[in-house]
Amino acid sequence: MKFGFFDDANKEYVITSPKTPYPWINYLGTQDFFSLISNTAGGYSFFKDARLRRITRYRYNNVPVDMGGRYFYIKENDTIWNPGWSPVKTTLDSYECRHGMGYTKITGKKNDLKAEVTFFVPQNYTGEVQSVTLTNEGSAPKTFKLFSFLEWCLWDAQDDTTNFQRNFNTGRVELEGSTIYHRTEYNERRNHYAFYTVNTDIDGYDTDRESFIGLYNGFGDPQVVEAGKASNSVADGWSPIASHYKEITLGAGESTNLIFILGYAENPVDKKFEADGQTLNKEVAHKMIEQYNTPEKVEAGLAELKAAWDKLLGIYTVDTPDEKVNRMVNIWNQYQCMVTFNLSRSASYFESGIGRGMGFRDSNQDLLGFVHQIPDRARERLIDLAATQLEDGGCYHQYQPLTKKGNSDLGGNFSDDPLWMILSVAAYIKETGDWSILDEKVPYDNDESKAKPMLDHLMVSFYHIVENVGPHGLPLAMRADWNDCINLSCYSEQSGESFQTYTSPKFAAEGGYSKTAESVMVATLFTYTGPAFVDILKHKGMDEEAAKAQAEIDKMKDIVMEHAFDGDWFLRAYDNEG
Amino acid sequence: MKFGFFDDANKEYVITSPKTPYPWINYLGTQDFFSLISNTAGGYSFFKDARLRRITRYRYNNVPVDMGGRYFYIKENDTIWNPGWSPVKTTLDSYECRHGMGYTKITGKKNDLKAEVTFFVPQNYTGEVQSVTLTNEGSAPKTFKLFSFLEWCLWDAQDDTTNFQRNFNTGRVELEGSTIYHRTEYNERRNHYAFYTVNTDIDGYDTDRESFIGLYNGFGDPQVVEAGKASNSVADGWSPIASHYKEITLGAGESTNLIFILGYAENPVDKKFEADGQTLNKEVAHKMIEQYNTPEKVEAGLAELKAAWDKLLGIYTVDTPDEKVNRMVNIWNQYQCMVTFNLSRSASYFESGIGRGMGFRDSNQDLLGFVHQIPDRARERLIDLAATQLEDGGCYHQYQPLTKKGNSDLGGNFSDDPLWMILSVAAYIKETGDWSILDEKVPYDNDESKAKPMLDHLMVSFYHIVENVGPHGLPLAMRADWNDCINLSCYSEQSGESFQTYTSPKFAAEGGYSKTAESVMVATLFTYTGPAFVDILKHKGMDEEAAKAQAEIDKMKDIVMEHAFDGDWFLRAYDNEG
Repeated sequence: MKFGFFDDANKEYVITSPKTPYPWINYLGTQDFFSLISNTAGGYSFFKDARLRRITRYRYNNVPVDMGGRYFYIKENDTIWNPGWSPVKTTLDSYECRHGMGYTKITGKKNDLKAEVTFFVPQNYTGEVQSVTLTNEGSAPKTFKLFSFLEWCLWDAQDDTTNFQRNFNTGRVELEGSTIYHRTEYNERRNHYAFYTVNTDIDGYDTDRESFIGLYNGFGDPQVVEAGKASNSVADGWSPIASHYKEITLGAGESTNLIFILGYAENPVDKKFEADGQTLNKEVAHKMIEQYNTPEKVEAGLAELKAAWDKLLGIYTVDTPDEKVNRMVNIWNQYQCMVTFNLSRSASYFESGIGRGMGFRDSNQDLLGFVHQIPDRARERLIDLAATQLEDGGCYHQYQPLTKKGNSDLGGNFSDDPLWMILSVAAYIKETGDWSILDEKVPYDNDESKAKPMLDHLMVSFYHIVENVGPHGLPLAMRADWNDCINLSCYSEQSGESFQTYTSPKFAAEGGYSKTAESVMVATLFTYTGPAFVDILKHKGMDEEAAKAQAEIDKMKDIVMEHAFDGDWFLRAYDNEG
Repeated sequence: MKFGFFDDANKEYVITSPKTPYPWINYLGTQDFFSLISNTAGGYSFFKDARLRRITRYRYNNVPVDMGGRYFYIKENDTIWNPGWSPVKTTLDSYECRHGMGYTKITGKKNDLKAEVTFFVPQNYTGEVQSVTLTNEGSAPKTFKLFSFLEWCLWDAQDDTTNFQRNFNTGRVELEGSTIYHRTEYNERRNHYAFYTVNTDIDGYDTDRESFIGLYNGFGDPQVVEAGKASNSVADGWSPIASHYKEITLGAGESTNLIFILGYAENPVDKKFEADGQTLNKEVAHKMIEQYNTPEKVEAGLAELKAAWDKLLGIYTVDTPDEKVNRMVNIWNQYQCMVTFNLSRSASYFESGIGRGMGFRDSNQDLLGFVHQIPDRARERLIDLAATQLEDGGCYHQYQPLTKKGNSDLGGNFSDDPLWMILSVAAYIKETGDWSILDEKVPYDNDESKAKPMLDHLMVSFYHIVENVGPHGLPLAMRADWNDCINLSCYSEQSGESFQTYTSPKFAAEGGYSKTAESVMVATLFTYTGPAFVDILKHKGMDEEAAKAQAEIDKMKDIVMEHAFDGDWFLRAYDNEG
């Protein structure tokens, strides 16, 4: 069954049915503000960190799946529908979703009324712009009602889904003209807020979920939309939302455009309030709204975004007789690599954004795919990663993007981690010729007083492997090697314990993992990445160190050749007592 | 507006409309297996620990609220309805929910078909029995279809809602006759499983959520029910569920009864499988099913439960001219106290069961309300609580019911905690005259080698207050006093930090909290509970210690009288530097 096709000229994937086998999603945003958006406009937004700074609420693994997002409800007479079909699920006369480079355009048509919604996060902007164009394609005038909707997350996504005793009491909003401000905990200890606005006067609003949806209704039949009139509710605790209500009349063939903006803003602690000490200081929001309050500005912003992507994708292109190869290499694989760089797998439709931060191994690997596109930001990422490394060469397996600090919940001692950084730094130098990164002072464990040149980080990475070998001279698997679930090192035996991070009492003294279990995978990775390290040393004129490193590589090669194929190391590794 | 009434004779609250302002719920279970059930049959079940051993899945703060539970769908011709109205929300001809003592009975009627469902957890049984009686009150024969439904939680409720990368790959079920077994992770490292059965042959089943509900449908319009036929799906990963399908014909006036059981069972590690090493060893389940496979056995089980409650509530009764006082004192307040004992506030419709374990302070306080009903279990609870205490008299503020170990995530140093244990032990002795509890050997920090008599625990509790006073001789507020959010001790300044447990760097050296902030509340609690401790010492013939303790109490009284009313202590306490 076919659900869509590639539009190569526009670099878009065009989805022609809303009923995809699973939500098909796009990722908006390239810097600090990110949005996940499905082909029916489901999903959510966050600032930097999907766990700690979640802006809108989203329920993973819900029934039906993908309920909750940024929704536009249109009510013409007794017919209620969404441009993206869901959540009302009224059969549309036509539907199309175009996932492009950093933007998604959803078009729905019902009873000669066409609604085109373009969603994108402009460059250097902490907000999602939603441009809604409504066209009366009929031969008679139309009067209908438009309701916008999104649900605020109370910032910390983990707390938001578990701590109701507190959260049902903290929700707070503020209203100004056509702008709804979300300021939960702002008075208390936060200096950030969010807002949802539209560039026109409105006929009503709602900011309380139960008032808008109703206790027994769902996203598919909100009571306010069914009643055809906003209730102008002001949230006080419970679940704050943002919904605009506008009555619109269009002559035959007439068209109108409305621009909605979901924004995130921060204030200096001493400038949080207006003179009264209560009212939100909205300066930042006002500036942000001004930036995209006309169709011309939105067009320019979208053009700027597209140009930026054309530039990124233009750096490396192929032209083969096979259009599928060209499509994959020139557009979608590189796009995917950039998305991976931006979100580093911390949030998707299968990563809840709560369970993990940014991976040390992942990010170093991912860099190989995007370093040619954004060498400057690749350099920055390398330094962020190296700054979480420990002095002995060990690495935190993940770090929290908001704090850029190693995630001690998950800890380290993943045996392969250090080697990936050698690979990524080498790739960066090969791509840019920027040898200066080796002299860049980078902290250990985010402690500036422990800062040393990047070259020193590569050195301890290399020798972290050399100095942690097992009975056969093969690298210890430690808590886990590239296979994250290689439990033969931790010997976790109880449900609920992690294969990666459990510390067996029997190995507590020696760091919590077996000193017997070895990893041929890490050994081969060592022999694969080692030569790049040797080249780096030679380039720095450190011939003696280079020779020493080469000797270690050769030695490891011999050991692998001796043991890798006789299965003996394998049996021993699995033998608890070695 | 009125939603129901009290039926004093049956000790039931009768809800006459499903559309209560919020789900009105009851708590089933008194020992290890617990169920939360709303007046529309929403809710979930767990074994001992709502976080670590969740049996069925439930989505808190969902839209609509209270979606998910144990549902029965009835399809007669084209009409689909639930006895409890939700989730299909077909208007019923009649509806009634009776929340009784440990059981809930929901009755719905549509088109002359009456469905009565009684839910209860029998005494000493790790399962929920659901007795379904269907009666054709019409004058013609009826043929209709019955579908049962519940969704399995993959055991750890926190992991179940965040770690999809893993969980969507682990779900596993096993089928035997009319019984659906949930065995996710059983092969791996679990020795427990759950099952959902019915005491009759079935015409079909479903165990995969998407097959039963459909990707774009919800609990209110499952595609299998709409199609009127089970798809006999066998879950492999994703979201395992349990649904029975049965076609039923009833003559005019005829009635039939079906008994469904949701059960939880454990196996010894060496008896997990049958001879083939793969098939689940179902002995325990078979026994459990046998226990309640006839209406007579169910009646007897229900009668036993009611008798148990009559006994509990009969211990203390009043007879006043005011029926509301009698109702409150004789039934609902005591019932509430027992529920609080059973779940200790770890799970409700506002406590997600994930955020917290059982409270040290809470449980000692709650005991005052139920000690006269179940002195033996009160004694056991007191010993469980004391066993988490630290040798210096400090206490973990919470412990995990499954492990009975102190919860180090939340830690201790809540200044009032130790005093509540003096109060509860004294209340226990006053109620029972069982002085022997004072000689009971109880560990500190769950370490048997540190076991000392309960009297020693009271001693260190008392002196933990005496030895931790501030500038005015008033008890330190420590991290928090009875007011859990008394942040003047921790000086947390950033959002996301806990008012209770944040450790300010400026106080790190001295234990993470201010040594200036004092609590008059703890001081007065000390003078209130102290005398009971003095009586205990006197009874043990420890007159010297008694006099010494009395002197401390008198001294504290003087300090409170000196400072409590001049506001001076208060200002100082809030003055960071003291």
